[in-house]
Amino acid sequence: MHKLAIIGASGFTGAEFLRLCAAHPNFEVVIATGESQAHRPIADLYPNLASAYGNMVFTPHNDELISTIEASVDLVLMGLPHGHAQTLVPQLRGKVKHIIDLSADFRFNDPSVYPKWYGEAHQAPELLNEFVFGLPELFRDQLPGAELTAVAGCYVTTASLALAPLVKAGIVEPTGIIVDAASGVSGAGRPPKDNTSFCSVDEDFSAYGLLNHRHTPEIEMAISGYAGVDAQLLFTPHLAPMNRGILATCYGNLSDIGATTETALECIAEAYTDEPFVVVDQRSPSTKTTLGSNTVHLTARVDERTQTVIAIGALDNLVKGASGQGIQCANAVLGLPEHTGLPTAGLFP
Amino acid sequence: MHKLAIIGASGFTGAEFLRLCAAHPNFEVVIATGESQAHRPIADLYPNLASAYGNMVFTPHNDELISTIEASVDLVLMGLPHGHAQTLVPQLRGKVKHIIDLSADFRFNDPSVYPKWYGEAHQAPELLNEFVFGLPELFRDQLPGAELTAVAGCYVTTASLALAPLVKAGIVEPTGIIVDAASGVSGAGRPPKDNTSFCSVDEDFSAYGLLNHRHTPEIEMAISGYAGVDAQLLFTPHLAPMNRGILATCYGNLSDIGATTETALECIAEAYTDEPFVVVDQRSPSTKTTLGSNTVHLTARVDERTQTVIAIGALDNLVKGASGQGIQCANAVLGLPEHTGLPTAGLFP
Amino acid sequence: MHKLAIIGASGFTGAEFLRLCAAHPNFEVVIATGESQAHRPIADLYPNLASAYGNMVFTPHNDELISTIEASVDLVLMGLPHGHAQTLVPQLRGKVKHIIDLSADFRFNDPSVYPKWYGEAHQAPELLNEFVFGLPELFRDQLPGAELTAVAGCYVTTASLALAPLVKAGIVEPTGIIVDAASGVSGAGRPPKDNTSFCSVDEDFSAYGLLNHRHTPEIEMAISGYAGVDAQLLFTPHLAPMNRGILATCYGNLSDIGATTETALECIAEAYTDEPFVVVDQRSPSTKTTLGSNTVHLTARVDERTQTVIAIGALDNLVKGASGQGIQCANAVLGLPEHTGLPTAGLFP
Amino acid sequence: MHKLAIIGASGFTGAEFLRLCAAHPNFEVVIATGESQAHRPIADLYPNLASAYGNMVFTPHNDELISTIEASVDLVLMGLPHGHAQTLVPQLRGKVKHIIDLSADFRFNDPSVYPKWYGEAHQAPELLNEFVFGLPELFRDQLPGAELTAVAGCYVTTASLALAPLVKAGIVEPTGIIVDAASGVSGAGRPPKDNTSFCSVDEDFSAYGLLNHRHTPEIEMAISGYAGVDAQLLFTPHLAPMNRGILATCYGNLSDIGATTETALECIAEAYTDEPFVVVDQRSPSTKTTLGSNTVHLTARVDERTQTVIAIGALDNLVKGASGQGIQCANAVLGLPEHTGLPTAGLFP
Repeated sequence: MHKLAIIGASGFTGAEFLRLCAAHPNFEVVIATGESQAHRPIADLYPNLASAYGNMVFTPHNDELISTIEASVDLVLMGLPHGHAQTLVPQLRGKVKHIIDLSADFRFNDPSVYPKWYGEAHQAPELLNEFVFGLPELFRDQLPGAELTAVAGCYVTTASLALAPLVKAGIVEPTGIIVDAASGVSGAGRPPKDNTSFCSVDEDFSAYGLLNHRHTPEIEMAISGYAGVDAQLLFTPHLAPMNRGILATCYGNLSDIGATTETALECIAEAYTDEPFVVVDQRSPSTKTTLGSNTVHLTARVDERTQTVIAIGALDNLVKGASGQGIQCANAVLGLPEHTGLPTAGLFP
Repeated sequence: MHKLAIIGASGFTGAEFLRLCAAHPNFEVVIATGESQAHRPIADLYPNLASAYGNMVFTPHNDELISTIEASVDLVLMGLPHGHAQTLVPQLRGKVKHIIDLSADFRFNDPSVYPKWYGEAHQAPELLNEFVFGLPELFRDQLPGAELTAVAGCYVTTASLALAPLVKAGIVEPTGIIVDAASGVSGAGRPPKDNTSFCSVDEDFSAYGLLNHRHTPEIEMAISGYAGVDAQLLFTPHLAPMNRGILATCYGNLSDIGATTETALECIAEAYTDEPFVVVDQRSPSTKTTLGSNTVHLTARVDERTQTVIAIGALDNLVKGASGQGIQCANAVLGLPEHTGLPTAGLFP
Repeated sequence: MHKLAIIGASGFTGAEFLRLCAAHPNFEVVIATGESQAHRPIADLYPNLASAYGNMVFTPHNDELISTIEASVDLVLMGLPHGHAQTLVPQLRGKVKHIIDLSADFRFNDPSVYPKWYGEAHQAPELLNEFVFGLPELFRDQLPGAELTAVAGCYVTTASLALAPLVKAGIVEPTGIIVDAASGVSGAGRPPKDNTSFCSVDEDFSAYGLLNHRHTPEIEMAISGYAGVDAQLLFTPHLAPMNRGILATCYGNLSDIGATTETALECIAEAYTDEPFVVVDQRSPSTKTTLGSNTVHLTARVDERTQTVIAIGALDNLVKGASGQGIQCANAVLGLPEHTGLPTAGLFP
Repeated sequence: MHKLAIIGASGFTGAEFLRLCAAHPNFEVVIATGESQAHRPIADLYPNLASAYGNMVFTPHNDELISTIEASVDLVLMGLPHGHAQTLVPQLRGKVKHIIDLSADFRFNDPSVYPKWYGEAHQAPELLNEFVFGLPELFRDQLPGAELTAVAGCYVTTASLALAPLVKAGIVEPTGIIVDAASGVSGAGRPPKDNTSFCSVDEDFSAYGLLNHRHTPEIEMAISGYAGVDAQLLFTPHLAPMNRGILATCYGNLSDIGATTETALECIAEAYTDEPFVVVDQRSPSTKTTLGSNTVHLTARVDERTQTVIAIGALDNLVKGASGQGIQCANAVLGLPEHTGLPTAGLFP
């Protein structure tokens, strides 16, 4: 039984770590921190976890935290807001065998991405090259035994899994790609805001982050890294009136080598043979069928009329798009089968 | 006071005609037909209309209908499923001064569109050239006094109003356009189906009609007709878990003449100066803000990095996307101010 | 044309006043205040009002406000949070002919209600007897010409319209009544809170305000006042995952005079003969059919097995439950037909 | 590993059996029948199960079914529409060791309930006394080894778990009880209907089954059986715009022995000490916190003013209200710990 600490357990991805770990046969959560919710029972903030974590309280982020982790924990799962991991990882490093971070703080090797897309310089650029990028279906090799893992973002996982095999196969041109995606509201996190109140979102559909959403360079990096080309794309996210789920509808220019819908589907299916969490099919992927599971659904179409390839992916942003993928990475890091303790069947309806 | 008949009043667009006519100062509905609901009180199928149409029942589609219309009605509003107008319009023509049809049955001048996109030959191709296309902001000239009007479709109105000025101005290339759109469930009509049941749709987001949705040639026609070029585009609709609303996020290649976000917004704003139902703004359009109103919200962005223009439109698919636009057309046909009796303020929240 | 000021126009009930006034043939809004949103364009906070109030901004609550109102306004509509009207009404009184207040600040004649149910003593108890209670279908007589009107609350209107005729007729015993109700989220107001964020509310149903919700004494007062008996009841509100709508399912003990479902329905129907905003029917009332309208739907059943009467009411909490009823009261106060400018047909779907 | 057949696997409760069995360490589903969906891949109707049941198809209800079950199955889980089990159980009996039925077909010992509340006489009344009632927290004794189990209904489980301890303790009078409940739409089953289409339900709240819902006598039976008194109650269900979840808000007259909120809560908490699936707390139960789990949340309040006790329960109608409870019963029947393979942590948000 591996002992785990969850740093940032009061946010949605932290709480999802707690939910998933409760069903994991090899994981025991011994610490769950929550700065704004310190000392509050987990069951009070998340009554859904009352049965599983009845008496546990959120631990504060104080001076003792690092030494407690060092004394009692094998692996740390982190679900903090952007920027916080940059200061915490340097403190934790060396005190615990493995750190799995869900934030974007260590996803890029190139420190220049941070001022350009995140608005400020990185606080620990010397660590960027130490991190493994956590998207197992595309980049699995370096995960076993990794000390530091930066898990891929939710939009990034959806779009990259759909597009990367097609770009690598040369079916889709690496530039001129459009990624048009929609997310459920949980992607915006737990703290209440004007634009995520029920009365703002319910019965609404609208785009946000026009032109400059932070996941843009990460999708480009993931596809480029897998396909060995320089991908460039325009990414437009939308907010959909639902709790969870991401659908990415991706458009690329059909290359000169050509393809049909059948060959495009085969290309994707072959890339993910034997993957326990990937379903490739003719069906149009639906976010709802992935609810609560670590499964991603993919499809593709080739439009001869406009010489365009459509690739579509759907997943649960808090599971395969965050905490589930984090645990998949933890499994890989620890040498467990990747699917250990992770649900593949979605909750429907 | 103009006397109106609503043919197909038991469907969602027909019921919306009833709702809007109840508040129209110059319209009196004297007949409301409903084949499957004949003789049933309107208030029984649509309790929302109980106060306004307390004792009225749906009239059957029998032999007397045409003569009753001839005797008592100035203008017919039609909200029938695809194909039905093709047989009814030849019977009605000459018996009533004005017909406003919401279906796609008479939107195209070119009869070859029907077998290609709608799966069967047109039943009355000789009438196709007699119809005026009902999208007043783009094609207003022929509406006053028109005998036959084919109102533009919901997706078509949204995408065309956003794109047409930019293509006409030469800012957006006429080919290589992507229209990625999402619709509320009311667009699928009233009869219950597997894919529009609450448990199928709620908390789900997915694409449908991949590659071959019927609105594709109509959007191309509207933009081409307004801009005077041959537009070609790929259209992908999605189903969003909400009652009403369409958002179209449109991507086009920035042309050599170039543009900035500011000039693109100015281009659209100028095209719709003094239009009572068009709001052009920097804000990202939201379907929710259009609920129940005949208003469309538009914006645009220019991405220098990828040389792409984004144009976004939002409207209520049953109002500006159907019955409200039908009444706007009826107003124009009858010489009334176009905004007569139509709400411009949306219901929020 | 009457000139109006809306005080508290940035909240949901204030914004609904703006929406409804935009379609009112006799009302012109000349001032709309919003303390937290002062100087911000209305269209920026409420894009749904962009077409109707294009360039208008929220006016601050400063020293000039009272004199501006005195100089330019016939009637003031107030939609402030609880407690604010207690300080503002004394300042406004005498400066404007009519004040219509949506808050609970002046609904009770008995000042002891305030410390008991609202937690603090009233600031202007001498004014309590000056206010007319604004629930026209039950208490219409004093409205014409009234200087000060306190509009009934949303739950109060729903439950009282359903129960009052049955209690007055002696069919339902005045004590032992249960009012079990559900409301859409807009009832909680615009500012974002933990318990009204989308991710808290969507797909959830739960009770709140157990035992001590503030509307309890007001429902008792309305029924008692209309029926001429001392009613006592237990009220339990629930939060439902929808924007608008209140449904009140009320249970009362069948009295010794007895009744059947038919006679109970007749009793209610007779009480509201010729009311433009009340629909009494065998159908189970649905909140959705009232959306955006000032209409209330009512039904009743008598259960012989348990000797219980069920009375059910449904309405839109922001219209008949707040701003629409406020305008209905304003119409009555000003001598206009009560239904002037108010929608009776709900938006469906 | 126990071999299971799921009869009626194409409905929502059958599909939920499939989802839960996929994560159960001791269960292997070898047959899943679906009459209307025979020979169709499970993954085609339920893409959420694609990862877990990739190649399995729905088996038809033909002559071979019984002999196949006899040859290969230890336990049958049944999720058929009302009435079907009455003809199937007599055929299956003796061919398989254990049958767990989710329908109401064998819940009552008294055959007269069926014509009165279900509208027709029972087809196999001689079997009624052979069935054990499957609500483990109240009636656990007879489950181990039981051949035939009739699992309690969804509303019944919610209301009975909340009320039964209070009635048994004499705190709540056994007559004059009101059960006011709300359910998500999945309770109405998979086939599309007018009243469960998205556009009917979304943004709506309404009551149904007024006075005569079939769960009424079953709630009375469960409370009476546990408390040893004759309970009588009026039950009113409502439909809420959400996929899953039942909340029952129950009102009872406080008895002469009296109680406070504290003693009422203690009474319930003591009744369920050590139950893995019951959470008793001061918090108002929320359906959302139970999503996907077999957990029920309970609370209570005593209102001295009206001498009324409120008891509230919340659960997931497809898990603790149906298939999860069915598996809990199967565990008990087979001698496994009741919580084996069942999730206790709900999915949030």
